Amino acid sequence: MNDVVTSGRSRAGGRAARQTLRATRDFRMLPGLTRNIPVCEVMDGGQVEKIDNASMDILENVGVLFRDPIALADWKKAGAKVVGEMVYLDRGLIRDMISTIPSEFTYHARNPANSVRLGGKHSVFVPMTGAPFLRDLDDKRRNPTLDDLAMFHKLSHMMPALHSTAHHIVEPYDHPISQRHLRITYSSMKHSDKMFMGMTTSPRNAEDVLDMCAILFGDDFLENHPVTTGNCNGNSPLVWDETMLGAMRAFSRRNQPVLCSPFVLGGANTPANVPASVAQLNAEALSALAYTQVIRRGAPAVYGHYLSTVSMKSGAPMAGTPEISLMNFMIGQMARHYRVPWRTSSLLGGSKIFDAQAGYESATTLSATLHAGANYIWHSAGWNEAGMHCSVAKFIVDAEQCVMAYRMAEGPKWGDFDAALAAIPDIGPGGHYLGHPHTQANFQTAYFMPELFDNNSIEQWTAEGEKDVTARALALARKLLAEYEEPKLDEAKNEALLDYIARREREIPAADELNQSY
Amino acid sequence: MNDVVTSGRSRAGGRAARQTLRATRDFRMLPGLTRNIPVCEVMDGGQVEKIDNASMDILENVGVLFRDPIALADWKKAGAKVVGEMVYLDRGLIRDMISTIPSEFTYHARNPANSVRLGGKHSVFVPMTGAPFLRDLDDKRRNPTLDDLAMFHKLSHMMPALHSTAHHIVEPYDHPISQRHLRITYSSMKHSDKMFMGMTTSPRNAEDVLDMCAILFGDDFLENHPVTTGNCNGNSPLVWDETMLGAMRAFSRRNQPVLCSPFVLGGANTPANVPASVAQLNAEALSALAYTQVIRRGAPAVYGHYLSTVSMKSGAPMAGTPEISLMNFMIGQMARHYRVPWRTSSLLGGSKIFDAQAGYESATTLSATLHAGANYIWHSAGWNEAGMHCSVAKFIVDAEQCVMAYRMAEGPKWGDFDAALAAIPDIGPGGHYLGHPHTQANFQTAYFMPELFDNNSIEQWTAEGEKDVTARALALARKLLAEYEEPKLDEAKNEALLDYIARREREIPAADELNQSY
Repeated sequence: MNDVVTSGRSRAGGRAARQTLRATRDFRMLPGLTRNIPVCEVMDGGQVEKIDNASMDILENVGVLFRDPIALADWKKAGAKVVGEMVYLDRGLIRDMISTIPSEFTYHARNPANSVRLGGKHSVFVPMTGAPFLRDLDDKRRNPTLDDLAMFHKLSHMMPALHSTAHHIVEPYDHPISQRHLRITYSSMKHSDKMFMGMTTSPRNAEDVLDMCAILFGDDFLENHPVTTGNCNGNSPLVWDETMLGAMRAFSRRNQPVLCSPFVLGGANTPANVPASVAQLNAEALSALAYTQVIRRGAPAVYGHYLSTVSMKSGAPMAGTPEISLMNFMIGQMARHYRVPWRTSSLLGGSKIFDAQAGYESATTLSATLHAGANYIWHSAGWNEAGMHCSVAKFIVDAEQCVMAYRMAEGPKWGDFDAALAAIPDIGPGGHYLGHPHTQANFQTAYFMPELFDNNSIEQWTAEGEKDVTARALALARKLLAEYEEPKLDEAKNEALLDYIARREREIPAADELNQSY
Repeated sequence: MNDVVTSGRSRAGGRAARQTLRATRDFRMLPGLTRNIPVCEVMDGGQVEKIDNASMDILENVGVLFRDPIALADWKKAGAKVVGEMVYLDRGLIRDMISTIPSEFTYHARNPANSVRLGGKHSVFVPMTGAPFLRDLDDKRRNPTLDDLAMFHKLSHMMPALHSTAHHIVEPYDHPISQRHLRITYSSMKHSDKMFMGMTTSPRNAEDVLDMCAILFGDDFLENHPVTTGNCNGNSPLVWDETMLGAMRAFSRRNQPVLCSPFVLGGANTPANVPASVAQLNAEALSALAYTQVIRRGAPAVYGHYLSTVSMKSGAPMAGTPEISLMNFMIGQMARHYRVPWRTSSLLGGSKIFDAQAGYESATTLSATLHAGANYIWHSAGWNEAGMHCSVAKFIVDAEQCVMAYRMAEGPKWGDFDAALAAIPDIGPGGHYLGHPHTQANFQTAYFMPELFDNNSIEQWTAEGEKDVTARALALARKLLAEYEEPKLDEAKNEALLDYIARREREIPAADELNQSY
């Protein structure tokens, strides 16, 4: 994919260099990103206090609806004021609860080389999930299958900047919905040895995922090590429902991190004002983060959100708008204020096809999330049509964009500054550097060269068939899939997982309605 | 284009709202951008000193080639060591010279409402220039004419976030090259009352441009007010040629700002190391900035660069690579260290067509230049194929992206924070905000809705003909051109300009070779 992830180094130009690059393609995962550029903070200390105070006022006086009898009982026991389904959370209680959330932790992958750190300066890229459609290897839009899901898990495994295979990148329609979570989880586990996400479509489904994790990692290991991630969406404004809270309990009880994600459509379910929307979102996130600590003190949890602004024309979520960037900057500040890791969404597109719109939207979101200092950077590959489809072409291009963002966020490299400076008098005014030994030794590592962006002359591009980036990405996807090598599961664990799935599929009735989740 | 630039406000949804938006489209220019987000600074103070010191060492010991007898004589008189064409610049001399460059100044447009501030927190967006081809209203790639240039000047006039019409956005091939600068300048002056750029294709051409500015603004006004901008490219490494230096003298003598722009292709004409490349570029820029002050102390000048990294495959400049972003962040720091305004290039694309590649590249560059805190943000609309063509479709989309970046860079708006917060208890958990009076009064100004990005459902998009962003942008371009109203020139000035052009075209022999400039 690029110089960072190719072993060896070519000093020849043109075709020979290209062949060398291809020959040495290296699929090894990049380590979790350790950011080394400053975060973009758009609020001063007083404004952070204003948001904090407004959120605490909301929690104390407006309250949060927990539509779940167990959560209501839990909150009562924890000392909150509970009136019907409404929970009023005192700021002292909130601050006390969130104080035990770890500010950083390590995710363990079944291949220890692929374990990654999260929180503080440590960030990971995770592919998109939840698409009810895909645009396939022929760019055809259709319903996905388990094979399509496996394809995306394989590609996630091979793209160096993706640190996770996530879970249901696409919804596999060829399997009964009620049993789908088992096959999805197995697909993530089988096709890659990176970390993965856990389905939260119901409390029982979450338990199944965690039982499978226990098979893969061992019960004791699971108890003390984050290995997967659950996402729990809130219904903004200020509502958490039974399904999500039940799934949250399953994860937190077993010490597995949960993304506490209000689902915000700015202006539709928040006020028509950016800081006030952040205040509401912040209250929502805090209420769920605090609840994870009611479930189990010290359990890892992540400040989440799904964040968009809505089109007045269609009511649909938009991507890459200025307010989404600003809210990301502000939410990052709030999460750092509370010292909890935070999640955002990246590389989002609202286009129906992989055109320039999708490119602008995706790159704008990616840039904002990097400058915002987000930790868990979700939906980082494939997302288009507001999440309605995952595009194979876009998946490949997005994954390379993550490599580029990764390099940007690492900051400038000063290692050989003096040696590089020494080349300047060697070359002198009017010279050129390509033949200089320092250039020949360092060109590939000094400057990133995107594989999927065509920078040839128009004559060459025409001679090569006038391929747009979609065509080039799909060709690369086919090539990658042909080169895929499965990182085999331990035979005994594999059988235990298959036994578990077989047993649960006998137990779970096969309903066939369709679900979606984000 | 958007709520910022529409007068009136619609409370109806859907089609009615759309019609209202159209009816009230407002082409008024947005004021020059005053940034209110922090700059991304990737160097600490010690690293800034390192770059400064390395640059000063280069200027003192490696030297800079000034291939121009007048400049060499000027430098000798100013106290520099001159050996042949090589000028060795002592750091004391450099620091003294650049100390008189204004850190901020105001550009005056012929319509005073369109005057803009530059430097410090003040930034402007300027369209691309120098394209030898265009992709026209039918997306056909061909050589441009004066009519095509006029079209781009009209569009520049109508796009609210573009603060300038620049000069030869495209090269008009239907007019003799030796006389082209006159028609280009007249086209900028006639079709818009925003500011514009001045051709620097030769010292005499620059004098023509400035004579025309004197006709438009008056001799006395010109003497004390920046009204146009010249760009002078250096030949990296460390060379300034006679044409550029002569044009620089023409501008600086008459107190008009010059962009002092080393032309950097990272790795080809700089070392294979980001900080060392910045040190060289910085030395080059400083040598030209200092020379503007040798010409005329106190004349405005802008720290410039054209900056790219090169593809190892084709030798072509790339866009949107991580190192370009990092170099922009670093150059911004250096320019602020010296307290001079600085120029960068934005929204660059290397794609042959307006596909997703162009979108990613453009948005990545735009975001980097905004976070870098660039002041003179050039090439902000139309640039694709590494500057070989200006695309009408991309021009329109880029210009809307500039509006979006502008809003992002203004930071969050706290004005009605308390009123917006008050809506939260009104709505309560589980409610929705669209019907709330605060939402109805503020939705349009709170959240930007891109006109060119389709966020409809796939069903609606299909019903509307499956138009990609190129098709939508070209349709909008046609519509805008149909609505264009010329901001008429004063009749006497117009005649004087035409007389000047007629006289100079009699004097200048009509050669017909082709030139290009960036």
